[in-house]
Amino acid sequence: MTRGRFIALEGGEGTGKSTQARLLADALAALGHSVTVTREPGGTEGAEAIRALLLAPPGRGWGPRAEALLFAAARSDHVEKLIRPALDAGQWVVCDRFLDSSRAYQGGAGGLGDDTIMVLHDIGSGGLLPDMTVLIDVAPDTVTMRLAARDKGVADAIGGRGGEYHANVAHAFRRFAAAAPGRFVTVDGEGTPEEVHHRILAALALLPDNAA
Amino acid sequence: MTRGRFIALEGGEGTGKSTQARLLADALAALGHSVTVTREPGGTEGAEAIRALLLAPPGRGWGPRAEALLFAAARSDHVEKLIRPALDAGQWVVCDRFLDSSRAYQGGAGGLGDDTIMVLHDIGSGGLLPDMTVLIDVAPDTVTMRLAARDKGVADAIGGRGGEYHANVAHAFRRFAAAAPGRFVTVDGEGTPEEVHHRILAALALLPDNAA
Repeated sequence: MTRGRFIALEGGEGTGKSTQARLLADALAALGHSVTVTREPGGTEGAEAIRALLLAPPGRGWGPRAEALLFAAARSDHVEKLIRPALDAGQWVVCDRFLDSSRAYQGGAGGLGDDTIMVLHDIGSGGLLPDMTVLIDVAPDTVTMRLAARDKGVADAIGGRGGEYHANVAHAFRRFAAAAPGRFVTVDGEGTPEEVHHRILAALALLPDNAA
Repeated sequence: MTRGRFIALEGGEGTGKSTQARLLADALAALGHSVTVTREPGGTEGAEAIRALLLAPPGRGWGPRAEALLFAAARSDHVEKLIRPALDAGQWVVCDRFLDSSRAYQGGAGGLGDDTIMVLHDIGSGGLLPDMTVLIDVAPDTVTMRLAARDKGVADAIGGRGGEYHANVAHAFRRFAAAAPGRFVTVDGEGTPEEVHHRILAALALLPDNAA
């Protein structure tokens, strides 16, 4: 059986990753692929329990080191129990956030450094990388507008961090994409969900004319 | 202010660590020290929440890698929020299990290897080591008898593992103690709690005649 392909969607808060993950999964299914759509942190029972601890920390909140370890633990469970088995079974996996979010948030904005995040990823998940990572890039003003429009009450412990933290996240994502053009495609996230979806299909060479 | 001293109690299930931690803390307090007694996994709100996930895992249980990352995350929170501040404030810290449990369980019996556990400890807790580690050594038959006498219902996810796992844990502890005689003292854990307590005070040179 042919191994499936692993596609991650990345970007900061309010860039439309979750919506685009669903649209992409639907499009892949329409092309005849068997698809698993999932998210991080989370995706398995264990990792979702860790997600709850990350987004609503007990006590005074996690330090950057504990936070990075918890993300790596959640990813380890997710890769072991869901992502690798799905890929081995020939499915395509579409994941809303993956390793590059840990690199951008905890490694970049959180100050732990990229090497530390990669060491944790090697230990936890054998260094598994997506076949393709779609970075959705949106202007800061658009993000502010979208987040204000969300009916979500109080922001979570990570999304609720200050503007400088999120600017550092966005900067880090752009650096990663520039440094690994073979794995990343950067897609303009402005406009309607359908417009962005069309750009993602084009970037992944999945439009009907190019489909196998 | 003089930094406090950090004493960890180590050993397998049913060796009497928790009882001895309390007795040791009381003895240190009676000698005039300010003492914090704590345990792992746990000791802080965040780490106790991780403890709950470790001992009663959601889903199908943690793989060895996720388990080691969760222990390192709990320890990171514990060291950052409780152990280092207590030591810096001049308190003595008595901890029921610490790093060497991760080395013996996840690194040794779990097969991850000692180097991996030490890398995680460097990342999570800056490599903090106890000033002194008391290994309580008890014959396997005694452990079996003690655990059977405990009114604890079903064993937790780690304590409930098979005899070979726990034999490997005990073997690993002995190896660590032999390799680092400056940091470890090994104490015979057979007999009454008071007998073992007396041996621990003697091993730590804390008996009245030797006390400062």
